[in-house]
Amino acid sequence: MAFDTLDAFATLVAGFAPEDAQARAAATARNKVLTKPPAALGRLEEIALHMAAWQKTDKPTCDVPQILIFAGNHGVTAQGISAFPADVTVQMVANFSAGGAAINQLAKTFGAKLDVVALDLDTPTQDFSQGPAMSEDETVAALKAGFEAVDPKADALVVGEMGIGNTTAAAAIATALFGGAAADWAGRGTGLDDPGVAHKAAVIETALKANPDRAPLAVLSALGGREIAAMVGAMAAARHHSIPVILDGFIASAAAAVLYGIDASALDHVLAGHVSAEGAHPKLLAKMGKAPILDLGMRLGEGSGAAVALGVVKAAVACQSGMATFAEAGVSEGDG
Amino acid sequence: MAFDTLDAFATLVAGFAPEDAQARAAATARNKVLTKPPAALGRLEEIALHMAAWQKTDKPTCDVPQILIFAGNHGVTAQGISAFPADVTVQMVANFSAGGAAINQLAKTFGAKLDVVALDLDTPTQDFSQGPAMSEDETVAALKAGFEAVDPKADALVVGEMGIGNTTAAAAIATALFGGAAADWAGRGTGLDDPGVAHKAAVIETALKANPDRAPLAVLSALGGREIAAMVGAMAAARHHSIPVILDGFIASAAAAVLYGIDASALDHVLAGHVSAEGAHPKLLAKMGKAPILDLGMRLGEGSGAAVALGVVKAAVACQSGMATFAEAGVSEGDG
Repeated sequence: MAFDTLDAFATLVAGFAPEDAQARAAATARNKVLTKPPAALGRLEEIALHMAAWQKTDKPTCDVPQILIFAGNHGVTAQGISAFPADVTVQMVANFSAGGAAINQLAKTFGAKLDVVALDLDTPTQDFSQGPAMSEDETVAALKAGFEAVDPKADALVVGEMGIGNTTAAAAIATALFGGAAADWAGRGTGLDDPGVAHKAAVIETALKANPDRAPLAVLSALGGREIAAMVGAMAAARHHSIPVILDGFIASAAAAVLYGIDASALDHVLAGHVSAEGAHPKLLAKMGKAPILDLGMRLGEGSGAAVALGVVKAAVACQSGMATFAEAGVSEGDG
Repeated sequence: MAFDTLDAFATLVAGFAPEDAQARAAATARNKVLTKPPAALGRLEEIALHMAAWQKTDKPTCDVPQILIFAGNHGVTAQGISAFPADVTVQMVANFSAGGAAINQLAKTFGAKLDVVALDLDTPTQDFSQGPAMSEDETVAALKAGFEAVDPKADALVVGEMGIGNTTAAAAIATALFGGAAADWAGRGTGLDDPGVAHKAAVIETALKANPDRAPLAVLSALGGREIAAMVGAMAAARHHSIPVILDGFIASAAAAVLYGIDASALDHVLAGHVSAEGAHPKLLAKMGKAPILDLGMRLGEGSGAAVALGVVKAAVACQSGMATFAEAGVSEGDG
C-alpha cells in the first residue's frame, strides 16, 4: 500500500471498507443452532461474531495470531518523566530476542508469532516539550514500518510497544485529541510517585503549547514516538487486510485514538483486549466506545494484556467453529 | 481416602492442610526479580503465586489441567422449574462424548483432559419440594464418585456440571446456607421468564420448609443433586492432593459453598474463574470472599467459564515460570 505523505495515509484510513455483513449474518445463524441455550456464552459470542465478520467466514479461527512489538526512544525522557532509564528500551529489546520477557511466554502459551521491530533506538525522537517529536518524513517512515510488519496471513493481530517515556507521549496524544487537562490523562506509567505524575503533567502542558496543531496525524507527528506511529500503521494494515486487532493498553490505545480521530469507523475491526491499571485507560477506551474483554490490573505494555485476551478469543472462535448444532447432536431445544 | 458417612467426610474437610507457605515465599521472591516493573502483571501475579503455593513450587505449571463434568437428573423438574426437558441431560452427555459441546472445544483449546461422569441419570433424585433429594448413602456415593474422579497428577482442576433443573437446586442450597429469601437466590437458569423465576422461588421456599436441617452436608443431601455432591467431592479431592481449583459458575459455587459451610478455609485452594450472568452469582462469590478472574456474561455451566479462565491461568504461570530475571537478561531496574 503506497502512502508517502501524512495526507495520503489519512485518505487511505478514511476509505477503509466495512466488515463483511454477509459473514456476520452467516455466523449469527450458525451461533443460533449450536448446542447451548441462546446467548449462554455471553461475550464469547460477540467476540466470535466480530472475528467472523472481519475474517469473512462463519467459522473464524485464531490459530495463527501475530504479536508485533515496536520499540522506540523518546527525547522527552530528558525531562525526567520516567522511573526507568532510557537504556532499558534497548535492553528489553534484547530480552525479547532472547525469549525472556513476559510477552515471549504469552506468545508461546497462545501459539502466536512474535515479531519485534526496533525503530532507530540510537536516535531518540526530539524532546516534544520543545517542539515536534518527529518530522513528517520520520512519521511516515514509522507508519510504513508498522504497516509493512503485519503478516497478511495472520488471523488476529496484537500490537504492543516498548519505549521508556511513552506513557508521557500517549497521555499527551490523548490530551491533544480528546481535550481536558494533561493531569486528567497522565498516570504513573511504570512507577512514578505523586510528584513525578504532577511533573509529567506539567511537561505535557508545555508540550501542548509548543505543538498547537490538533489534526490527528499532526498530533502523532508532534507528540508520538516512532513506536506509536508504527502501531498506528500496523492497525491500519490489519484493517487493509481485514485482520481483527486485539488492542493492548494505554499506549496502544493512544495509537488507536489517532485512527479514531481520522475516522471513528477506522477502529471497527478492533476489540479492546483489556483495561490496564494506568489511570486514564478506562476513559480512553470509553471515548472510543470500546469495552475491554479483561480487567486484570495489568500495566506492562509489550502487548501483554492483549496477548492474554488472545486466550479468550481462541476460546470464543473454538466454540463458534467447533460446536455441534442441535440437529447434529440430537439435543432437544428449549422453550425459552 | 476413606469416608463412608457424611460425618467422616466433614471430619476430612475440617482437617485439610494449608498451602505451602515456603513455596509462596520462594515464588514471591522470584516474581520480584523478573524483567518487569513491580506488580505490572497485576492479577496474573496473584494467580501465579496461588498456583505456586498449592503446587509447592516457585515455578508453577498449568500443562495438564483436568476438566471434570458431572451429570445428574433432578426429581424437582416435576415442578416445572426449567425451560428445557430433563431428557436434555442425557442428550448433552452424549454430546460431550461425541466432542460437540462448548466444553469440548474449550478443553481442546487449553490442552485440558476432559472427563465426564454421568451419575445414575435413569434414577433422578427425589423431588426435594416434598422431602430430601437424596439419602445419606446416595449422597456419600456421589461425594465418592467425585472424589475418585480427580486425577492426582493434574496441575489444575475445573469442575463443571450438566443437570436440567440444577440452578433450582443450587439456589435452594445457597438460600439454606446463607439465608435470605429464595427470591434473592433464584435466577433465570437456562432461560426462564419472570413468572418462571417466581415459580422457581416458590418451589424453593416449599423445599426449605420440607427440609429444615441447615448443617452443610444435610443441606447437600436434602437439596443437592448427585452432580452437585460429586463436585463437592472433587473439590475436596483436589485439596487432598494439593491441586488448585478454578471455580465455574453458580452451580459449582453452590457446591463450593457446602465446603465453605463446613470450614471457610476449605476453599483456600480455589480461585473463582468467572462471574456468570446468573443473577445471584456475584453475591454467592462475595459471601465466600472470592473475586472472579473473568466477567464475560457467560451462563452455560459445563465448567465453561472456568475453562476459559484456564487461559488466564496458563498465561500467569507461563510468565512466573518462564520469564528471565533482571540479572539473567542484563536489564536495569527502575528507581520506582
